[in-house]
This record gives sequence, structure tokens and C-alpha cells, in this order.
Amino acid sequence: MAAQQIIQVINPNTSAAMTHTIAQAARAVAAPETTIVAVCPSQGVPSIEGHFDEAVAAIGVLEQIKAGREQGVSGHVIACFGDPGLLAARELASGPVVGIAEASMHMATLVATRFSIVTTLPRTVIIARHLLRQYGFEHHCSAVHAIDLPVLTLEDGSGLAQEKVRERCIQAMQQDGSGAIVLGCGGMSNLAQTLTRELGIPVIDGVSAAVKMVESLVALGLSTSKHGDLDYPVQKNLSGQFQHLN
Amino acid sequence: MAAQQIIQVINPNTSAAMTHTIAQAARAVAAPETTIVAVCPSQGVPSIEGHFDEAVAAIGVLEQIKAGREQGVSGHVIACFGDPGLLAARELASGPVVGIAEASMHMATLVATRFSIVTTLPRTVIIARHLLRQYGFEHHCSAVHAIDLPVLTLEDGSGLAQEKVRERCIQAMQQDGSGAIVLGCGGMSNLAQTLTRELGIPVIDGVSAAVKMVESLVALGLSTSKHGDLDYPVQKNLSGQFQHLN
Amino acid sequence: MAAQQIIQVINPNTSAAMTHTIAQAARAVAAPETTIVAVCPSQGVPSIEGHFDEAVAAIGVLEQIKAGREQGVSGHVIACFGDPGLLAARELASGPVVGIAEASMHMATLVATRFSIVTTLPRTVIIARHLLRQYGFEHHCSAVHAIDLPVLTLEDGSGLAQEKVRERCIQAMQQDGSGAIVLGCGGMSNLAQTLTRELGIPVIDGVSAAVKMVESLVALGLSTSKHGDLDYPVQKNLSGQFQHLN
Amino acid sequence: MAAQQIIQVINPNTSAAMTHTIAQAARAVAAPETTIVAVCPSQGVPSIEGHFDEAVAAIGVLEQIKAGREQGVSGHVIACFGDPGLLAARELASGPVVGIAEASMHMATLVATRFSIVTTLPRTVIIARHLLRQYGFEHHCSAVHAIDLPVLTLEDGSGLAQEKVRERCIQAMQQDGSGAIVLGCGGMSNLAQTLTRELGIPVIDGVSAAVKMVESLVALGLSTSKHGDLDYPVQKNLSGQFQHLN
Amino acid sequence: MAAQQIIQVINPNTSAAMTHTIAQAARAVAAPETTIVAVCPSQGVPSIEGHFDEAVAAIGVLEQIKAGREQGVSGHVIACFGDPGLLAARELASGPVVGIAEASMHMATLVATRFSIVTTLPRTVIIARHLLRQYGFEHHCSAVHAIDLPVLTLEDGSGLAQEKVRERCIQAMQQDGSGAIVLGCGGMSNLAQTLTRELGIPVIDGVSAAVKMVESLVALGLSTSKHGDLDYPVQKNLSGQFQHLN
Amino acid sequence: MAAQQIIQVINPNTSAAMTHTIAQAARAVAAPETTIVAVCPSQGVPSIEGHFDEAVAAIGVLEQIKAGREQGVSGHVIACFGDPGLLAARELASGPVVGIAEASMHMATLVATRFSIVTTLPRTVIIARHLLRQYGFEHHCSAVHAIDLPVLTLEDGSGLAQEKVRERCIQAMQQDGSGAIVLGCGGMSNLAQTLTRELGIPVIDGVSAAVKMVESLVALGLSTSKHGDLDYPVQKNLSGQFQHLN
Repeated sequence: MAAQQIIQVINPNTSAAMTHTIAQAARAVAAPETTIVAVCPSQGVPSIEGHFDEAVAAIGVLEQIKAGREQGVSGHVIACFGDPGLLAARELASGPVVGIAEASMHMATLVATRFSIVTTLPRTVIIARHLLRQYGFEHHCSAVHAIDLPVLTLEDGSGLAQEKVRERCIQAMQQDGSGAIVLGCGGMSNLAQTLTRELGIPVIDGVSAAVKMVESLVALGLSTSKHGDLDYPVQKNLSGQFQHLN
Repeated sequence: MAAQQIIQVINPNTSAAMTHTIAQAARAVAAPETTIVAVCPSQGVPSIEGHFDEAVAAIGVLEQIKAGREQGVSGHVIACFGDPGLLAARELASGPVVGIAEASMHMATLVATRFSIVTTLPRTVIIARHLLRQYGFEHHCSAVHAIDLPVLTLEDGSGLAQEKVRERCIQAMQQDGSGAIVLGCGGMSNLAQTLTRELGIPVIDGVSAAVKMVESLVALGLSTSKHGDLDYPVQKNLSGQFQHLN
Repeated sequence: MAAQQIIQVINPNTSAAMTHTIAQAARAVAAPETTIVAVCPSQGVPSIEGHFDEAVAAIGVLEQIKAGREQGVSGHVIACFGDPGLLAARELASGPVVGIAEASMHMATLVATRFSIVTTLPRTVIIARHLLRQYGFEHHCSAVHAIDLPVLTLEDGSGLAQEKVRERCIQAMQQDGSGAIVLGCGGMSNLAQTLTRELGIPVIDGVSAAVKMVESLVALGLSTSKHGDLDYPVQKNLSGQFQHLN
Repeated sequence: MAAQQIIQVINPNTSAAMTHTIAQAARAVAAPETTIVAVCPSQGVPSIEGHFDEAVAAIGVLEQIKAGREQGVSGHVIACFGDPGLLAARELASGPVVGIAEASMHMATLVATRFSIVTTLPRTVIIARHLLRQYGFEHHCSAVHAIDLPVLTLEDGSGLAQEKVRERCIQAMQQDGSGAIVLGCGGMSNLAQTLTRELGIPVIDGVSAAVKMVESLVALGLSTSKHGDLDYPVQKNLSGQFQHLN
Repeated sequence: MAAQQIIQVINPNTSAAMTHTIAQAARAVAAPETTIVAVCPSQGVPSIEGHFDEAVAAIGVLEQIKAGREQGVSGHVIACFGDPGLLAARELASGPVVGIAEASMHMATLVATRFSIVTTLPRTVIIARHLLRQYGFEHHCSAVHAIDLPVLTLEDGSGLAQEKVRERCIQAMQQDGSGAIVLGCGGMSNLAQTLTRELGIPVIDGVSAAVKMVESLVALGLSTSKHGDLDYPVQKNLSGQFQHLN
Repeated sequence: MAAQQIIQVINPNTSAAMTHTIAQAARAVAAPETTIVAVCPSQGVPSIEGHFDEAVAAIGVLEQIKAGREQGVSGHVIACFGDPGLLAARELASGPVVGIAEASMHMATLVATRFSIVTTLPRTVIIARHLLRQYGFEHHCSAVHAIDLPVLTLEDGSGLAQEKVRERCIQAMQQDGSGAIVLGCGGMSNLAQTLTRELGIPVIDGVSAAVKMVESLVALGLSTSKHGDLDYPVQKNLSGQFQHLN
């Protein structure tokens, strides 16, 4: 009933520190029979803070999806809050693929009627808004807040960004009328449990949420549909730097 | 990492046969450390096929939620596709509560860009439509189909209703451009795996999906938010037949 | 042209004082040929301030609908701002059924391009929001405000809640850019006319609005459609405490 | 409690025959204390079948609103299914103004979960769709059908258009899954009661619906809000052919 | 490749000063081969600040469209931010017709993810909101602001209204999180370029935007579709003051 | 008034034949003072028929945007109907960037109340649907049709795909009630003018539409807003194969 399985957790940026943070969050909730393999692209962007960064990171995600599929992993997590390359990854994968933004938003709607999001730079707010609309949750989200610090300050060891996140979560809880808070960056994944306890409301990390969702899909025997628009990419000769994606 | 837990699966109607079907579907996917307790109200409606039936069934759901909470269960599943009494149940519960309609719709959006629903009587179509809109998935659903047979024909042993479900799923797959199908009744839960194999696309049962979602929420330490509108009901003297809900 | 008719006004909670307030508001606007029969359940919740209260109250509403139908009333009003049990009541009724939330929202859109709602406890705001979306009026409503006092303070004789409602209406008028205000509780029904005069804008009570809408439907020969999903409930044996609803 | 009142029913086109049909429908449902004054512009379009016709007709509507207000009528009905000039009329009027499209759509949502519309020429379908969206009812309408005959064939005495309307209503009832039908032209107002009886579902005429809504608003003491964007037009010198609107 | 063409720019109000402002803005961006013919109705309203004003102005727009078409102009601009009579004008015209509200909103979505609007009187805000919804841009607009001065103060020579517009644009830029600003009145068309330079973000004037859009449509060989609901008005005898529109 | 300008038209796939087709369509409508520079990536996918292809193509688009910006072009067109990399390109560019899907959809709403789209493979339909929703045009589009042939059959010289497009356009015109048709592939750009003449309704090609829109934005002095979320990417060290994008 609970066969061994490997879940590939892909950090779409090239930061080893953030990959480590994400791996820890994933392992902390994984079932005993799940092995977490945390990876990041060898080439790409050190952090993801806009549409351009996302476009570059998507290639790294696809490379990892391809590698993971060849290694026979059971499913994949895309561990950046913009869910970069999600639908492309679903085409390429045979198993299920879950993004951490969608995972955390789905979970939030199960425990509260409305939630708030706390993200990093203000320019990423639009990305969260577009995802809310695409996933169907725009009416479930009260507000998207930015701490106005770059993603990598979460890994600088000072704790400053973490404190800002904590303050924003408290503000959001008091002002938005939201019952839950979604942390809008993979680099915040180690804060969820502490903040949940301190604030007394669900503070949701997408990395751990996505791991449980992939485990659930695997247990249910549900994989990415290959009927229709998520079918494997039409076979064609990718040229140049993209040949390895063939 | 994987403590023992009890998940209460509530069949909102009084049919013992359907409770049995639902219990089997729940146990088939539950983690080793999960104990499934399947219950149904002692009083209420034998099947749920409209708004009136749902209103009556909601009381039975609330009684069971209260009982489950007093027994210390970790979480609750409402195993009727209309998710009757869901928000009321969330107020009453301390743990997470997941409905099978929402669970299956959430899962469907993770494996396909669009899904179809196959339900029982035509008059239940409006219930599915209202839920799609409430949950945010109206743009992810291509069509809602009815087999035009009452719920309990799924338990009459003839296999007729099951065959009708199968035919409708095949039609929906061919005509709607959907990548996945959601089974719109708890009584269809034993069909999902066979149809998934036969059709080659994800055919999703809400009972098993909801069990995995409750397990996930428990593992993540996320419970129904008691901050705001899902807080415990304001204490007041329920009178007459409702005293036991105090 | 104006035959005698009976309109049953159902207060879904068990408060006699509020039933009295509601009855007065109904009679104040009823046509000469209309007899208002104001009722409340003998068993249930003394006030309705959340989803749980609504689920319990819905049973009382259905009992009264059944009784009213057996007495041959022409139509029914559900006099609680959450419109609890509305669609279930429509299934059970042969005549028209109108909720006070929908009635007041409909009327508001006829006299202003945008309206605000003033309700009681903050936890009821989400109920108003869900109704706005279900009825199609989310784009017509500027804001939903709560006075942060329980429903029954409207009946405690101190006038405190009434003064809070008045203050909130004035604030809403000045800040929301709304042309009309909807009173979000049956217990506020006696305030509408005074506030309309004092503020110089339409302040709308749902009880009186719903009475006129039921009168209108009766005069037009329009009753709840029994074609499709509001048809009478499928006949089945309700058991235990619900037998009397058979 | 039931003071004498005058309701001005404005046929926005110049057809005397249609004004007569509309007047009859209005009087058939008016309360004993209501006097119906049916008018149409002396100049304008003989029938309204598109945006251009509506723009021209709006001027006639405004002239009549001004005249009615000077005569002290209690309220106004705009008796063309496109509700031409509705918001402009509300600015000009001191009493309530109700359009027959909005009135019939509102009523339809009170007696069915979904309704269909049957209109005249295909080119008017877009007008109905725009109104559904503006009023908030796009999710309540299953389909808009056109009989593909000009408006004035309803007044040619042959009965052909009436028979086409009847056929389309029957088709809509069988195919759309709608519980009610809205007649999409003032000239169909005399068909509603017969079709309601024949089809056994609510077939709704906007003229009679609007008359009852204006009566209701008057009884409730609710008039067009003069706070904000429906306030009287800013005083300015209209020139030329529009001087009489000053 | 660049044939001579005439674009008729219609100021829907009767203000000669504003027609002059608008003509200048149009000519400043027109291609060398384009001749701008700026016109306004001889009869109508001196400024447009509400639904009533718009209804009156629509007739003047239609007269000018008819005249322009008879003169063989290539296309038409409706130079009032409410786009009065737009769909009626499209029926009447053979060439393309573009409103300045739609033109500026379209352009804004091409250069920013979200925009703000700055308009004149608060009562015109609702008109902008309705257009945003009709055109599909409600999710692209952060806020609609009013300077709370009448339209014609833009032509009083004092510069006061212009300074208020400037202040509001700066506020909107700082507070709304918008990347661009749309000027919500034809009378502001001479401010766009200066403000674009001063603020360092796109400040968009609809008059010039609409001229370029009409030029584009003409160059592309695209004209108002005469298939379906924008076909020429059904031929009928307009009577009285409307005879000249026949 | 009409300075020399260069518009870079980027074919996101690597097909030289399609780049040629696109260049011709662009040059056919460009103003005399505009120089069209048509480019395609040296590495990437030969055609774009799904999310995976789009993700790969986006990198090629960004390389070209960077090159174009360094060459001082005035603006950019992304000439694939999925508008791959559009928002990322806007971050990178200093001038305006317009996608051919958005350009053609915008133009369609100016000449018809509703339009249909004709695309290539069925799996690209979901891409068009997502764009319609993102751009705000879901209510303006009646239907999206696929000819069920790969993109490159448009360049095989047989004319088969072209004939299929023609047939589908005629069907769409007759059945959808649309006044205009949008061609859903850059490879169809040479069909628009012929089909517009044959069908007698606007058949819109995005390549030529986007060229005129970029010309318009340049003439208006409007460029991509660098205030907020479309600001230049945060400077960071892109590694490996992405170094040239630094």
C-alpha cells in the first residue's frame, strides 16, 4: 500500500543554499516511504524575481524534469512561487508535477475562506496575481504583500528578511480578515511551522504542501493526463543549446 | 514522522451499502498509519439528490463531526459530491475537513488543464455548477454530465448505473476536450481505478482524493483556521432536536 | 385583480422578539389584500451568526415551508440575511420563496449603481460575500461592513446596536461611493425608513423588500419552477427526527 | 397604506400598436390603486432592433421621463427589452425607473436557477448578452435565442411571430435545462400568461414584471438615489433640438 | 502603401475650445498622409459628465458619423472618454470607429501590467468602470481617480484643472502600483506628453491613441464588420427631429 | 513627424520559411518610414505547438530582444500566436513589445462584438484560451477552432493547410455568430487579406496588426513602463548557456 517512491524537488534557481532550505522543508513532511531528491539547475539565475528570471529558470526546470523522468522518479515539485514552466513541465513529465504556488493556494482554501500572500520584492506581486487568476483563486485571496527585500536576503544569515516576513504576516492577519497566510517564496519554507504556532493560524509553505500533493497523486494512481494538451511535446529537432532536451 | 491518526469519513446519507463502498475506497488509499472510521447518520435521507436532501443531510454531517471531534479524530471527510454542510462543519471541527467534490476538483486541476464531471440525476448538475464557481474552478471544467439514474441504483447490484457511468466517461473524454474526468458521486468511488486504466486518462474519485488531502493537511500541521469566519460557532442554546449539537 | 393572499414570513431563528420586529416590518408595507403570517421554528438557534447556525436554521425553515404549503399560503419569505435553506425551500414549496438578502440586493441595484452592506458580526461578512457572488451582484457592491455586535443586541432594548448601525451607514455613505445601503440583518428591518429619511439615500430592509417581491410574483402568476432542479424533492423515506418533513 | 399612484410606462418606439399591447400588459397586473399611463415618443424609431435604434430611442425615453416627472408620476417603466437610456433616465427622474429587461431577469432568478431568453432578430442577441453581464446575471442565463423575425411582425395580426415565439420557448425548455423563460421584447408581453400555462414553467414578461417592481419600490419608499452618480444631470445649456430637455 | 486618408475626429460635446484641443492632439500624432477633420455637433451638450449627457451627445455623434461617411472619410474617432454611442456609430459607419476610452485602455495594457485612470467629476467614475468591464480590462485597472472638477475647467485658461490632473497622476503612480496612467477626458489630451516626460511612465491620451488605431485599421484593410450585429441599421422611417438620420 | 524607425519582428521558431512569410506580412503594412527587420533564433524549436515549445522558444525571443535593443530598434513584435516570453521580453526591452495574439485580439474587438479564432493543432487551443483570459477578451471570443494540422504544413507548399484554414473560417463565420475571425498562427499571416475579401468580414492577422500597434506606440511616444513590474530585470549573474543574456 505504501511502495517506495522518489519525489524530485526542483529548485528552479541555482542557489545551493536555497536548494538546501527547500530540501529540508520537503524531507520534514515526506512520508517514510518517500525519498526526496532535491536538485537545482547547473546553469541559470541565482534567484527568481520577475518574468525574465522565470523564463530563464523554466529551461533549468525542464532539464531537471527530463533527468528526473529518465531516473524514474514518481513525481516532481517545482519549488519557486511563480511555478515557472509548470505546464511545459507537465507536457514533458510522465508523472505528476506540482508547483509550490498552486499547492499552497489549494491548501489555503481548505482551511480558510480567505487567505493573504506574503512575498519578497514588490515586482513579484503581479506574478502571484496572475497565478491566482489562472488557478481560480482570485476570490479567495484578500491581499498580496511584499516585504520589499530580494529573495537571497532570506539566505544571508542575518535573519532580517525572516523578521520582515513575520511582521508582514502579523499585519496581514490583523488587517486583511484572512484566516490563513501563504508564504510566497520557496526560501521562506522553514518559517511556516514556527509562524503557524506563533500566530495561531495556518501559515502555509508551498514546498511541503507540494510534496504531500505529489505523494497523494501517486498514491491515488493519478498522473499528468496524456490525453490532449498536456501530451508529450510533439517530437521535433531542438537545435543548439536545446539539443539535450530532445 | 508518521504518527497514528484517525480519519473520519462521513457518508452524509443513511445508506449502509454506500457507506461500505465509501469506506473501501478510503481504506484502499489510506497510509499505513491512518485508520479510517466510516460513519453515516442514524437519521436523515437515504440518498442525496437535491438541495432539500442536502439541507437535511447537513445536520447528520454536523452530528458526526461533533462526535468525531469528541473522539479525537485527526480530520474529517464529507463523502457526498455536494459537500453538504462543509463550511458549517469547518466551524464545528478543530481538525481539517475536506469535501469530496472539492478534493476531486482540486486534484483534477493538477493533472489536466480541463476536466469533465459525470454525475447521477440531472437535477444535481446545478449543485456541481455552484460548487465549481464557489471553489474557483468554473474555467477548468468543460462540462457536467448526468447519467440520469438515481444515486441508489449504484448500489442495486445490477451494474447498470456503473455501465452508464462508463459510457458517459468515454463520451466526455471524446467530446469535451477534457484531460481528466471527475466522478460526481460518492457511490462511484469504486469505479475510478478501473476507468483510469481503461480510458487511459485520470478518472478521479473524490473519496480517496479527500482522504489523501486530509492526511496531507495533518502531516503539514494545518488545521481549519479558527481566526475569523471559521471560528467555532458562537455559543448559544440550541433547542429541541438540536440540543445534542450544543 | 387583487385577490386575498397570505404571505408566510419565516424568521429562521427562534427569537420571538425578532419575529415580532420582522412581522411589523412586513405588515408595514404589505398590500391591503395581503395577510402576513410571521412564524419562527419552535426548535433551533436563537440567532444566526455563521455557517453552523445557518445549517441548523435551514431545518426550521423547511419545516415552516412545509407547514405553510399545507396551509395554502401564497408565498414565503425567508427573513434572515444569509437566506438559509433558500434553494431547498424552493424545492419544497409550490409557491414563490424569496430571501431577504436577495430581495434587498435586487432592490438596491434598481436605485443605485453601487451599494454597501452593513451587517452584525464580522464573521457574517463572508456569508454576504458568498451571496453577492451567487446572485451576481459582486460588481454592484462596494463594501460589506460589520458593526461588530451580536444579532441579539438589536433586541436588547438599549438602542446601542441601532446607533452603531446608523454610524456605519453614514460612514459607508461618505466613504464607499455607494448610492444605497443594504441592512444586513432581519433585526434591523425597523431602521430602514428612518435612516432613508435621515441620510437622504435609499437604506434598504430585506424583509419589506421580500414581501413586495413575493406579492409581485403572486400577482404575475409566477411561482417556483417545477421543471428541473427546483422540482419537488425526490420522494424518499426521511428517518428519525426528519420524518415530519416527509 | 395604498395611496393612489401613477406609473408611467414608456414604450421607447413610436408604434401605437405596440404601445397598446404594452399598456394592456401593464394594466393587467397593476394594483387597484395604480393608474397606468402608457406613452411613446412622438418622434423616433418605429421599432428597436439594434444599437443605433436604441440610441435614437433613448432621447424619446428621456423626453417622456421629463414629462412624467413634471406630471408628478410615481415611477417609470422603460418598456423595450434593451432598457435603452436606463441610467440616463435614472439621472433625470426623481422617482424609480425600471427597465423591462432587468425586471424580467431579476424575476427569473427568483423562480429558477437558470433561465433562457427568446428574442426577435439575431442582431438583438448581443444586446441581451451585454445586459446580462451588466446586471450580473450572465451565470443565470443558459442561452439567448432569436426567432429571426422583426419586432413589428408581432403586431401584424398574422400570429406568425407569436407561433415562432411559442416554438422557441418549447425548444428552449427542452434543450437548455432552464427552469424559466424570459420573453425578450415588449411586444411579446401578451404571450406570457398563456405560455406559462401551456408550458408549465414560468414564462416571464418584462412589462408586467417592471410594473410590479416600480409599485414595490414606491411602496417601500425607495427612489432613485440622488447621492452620487445617479444625481440629477449637471445643469447646462442644451442647445438646438435638445433645448426642451433642459 | 500609404494612401491619403481622412480621419474624422468627433468631439461629442459642443465646446469649440475642446474641439480645438482635441484637433491639436490628433494632428500632433497623425501620419503625414492623414488629414484630421475635427468636428463637433451643432446641437447638444457643452460638456459630458454623466449618463444623461452621454445619451444626448450620442445623437450628435451619429449625425457626424453619417456626415463623415457621406464625405467618404476613412474612419472615425469618438473623442469623449465615455465612448458615447460607440456601438450605434459602428452600425452606422462603413469604416472603423474607435472611442478614446477603449483606445487608451488598449494601449495601456501593452506597456504596463496595470494602469490607473484619472478623470474629472466623481460621477464619471462609474462610466469608466462600466467601460473597463465591457472592454475586458477590469483586471488591468488598479484604480479610477477623479479630480473633482467639471470638464470645462480644463478649458478655462487658469491651469488649475491641469495642475490637479498632474497631482492626481503623481499620487496614482505612487500609490496604486500602476505602471501607466490613462487620462480620462478628451480635454486632457494636451497633457499626456508633458506628464509622460515628467513622471517617467506612460501617461496615455485617448485622442492620439485612437487616431493611431484608426490609421492602423485602415492600413490593415480592417473595417467594422457588417456581418451580424454591427450591420447597418435595419432601414426604417425615423420621424421628426431624427429624419435627417435616415 | 514621421522619423525613420526600425521594428524588429521576431519569429520565435527557427523556421526560415515561416520567418520569410512573417517578414512579408510585416512589410506589406509597414509605414514608408518603417524598416522591418525579421529575425528568428539560431537555436530552438522549428515550430511551436505547445507549452514546452513555448518555454524553449522564449529564450530565443529574449536573445533577439537583447540584440534588437543593442541595435537600437524602436520596438519589437513577437510573431507566434502564443506570445511566448511576452512579459519577460517587456522587462528586457526599452521600447514597446507587442505579441501577435494580443494585437489581433485587440483589433478584433474594435471591428466586431465577438470574434472566433482558427488555430493549428487542437493542443494549442488551450494556449489561446489562457491568453484570452489573461488579456481580458474571454467574453469577446465565441469559439476557438483547430484545423488539426501541424504548424509547418503551412509551409509545405501543398496549400492543404491553407485550404483547411479557409474552410474553418467559413464554418466559424456561419456557426459562431462572430463578426470577425482571428488567424491563430504566424504562418497564416499571408491569408488574411484574401480571406477578408472572400468572406466579406475582417479576417485578422496578428503579424501585420502587431506591426501597426508598435508603430502606433512609437508615434505616441509610449514605451514599456519601467516603473514597477516591467522594470529591467534585477541585475544578477546568469550562468552557463545563459551568460550571453547578462
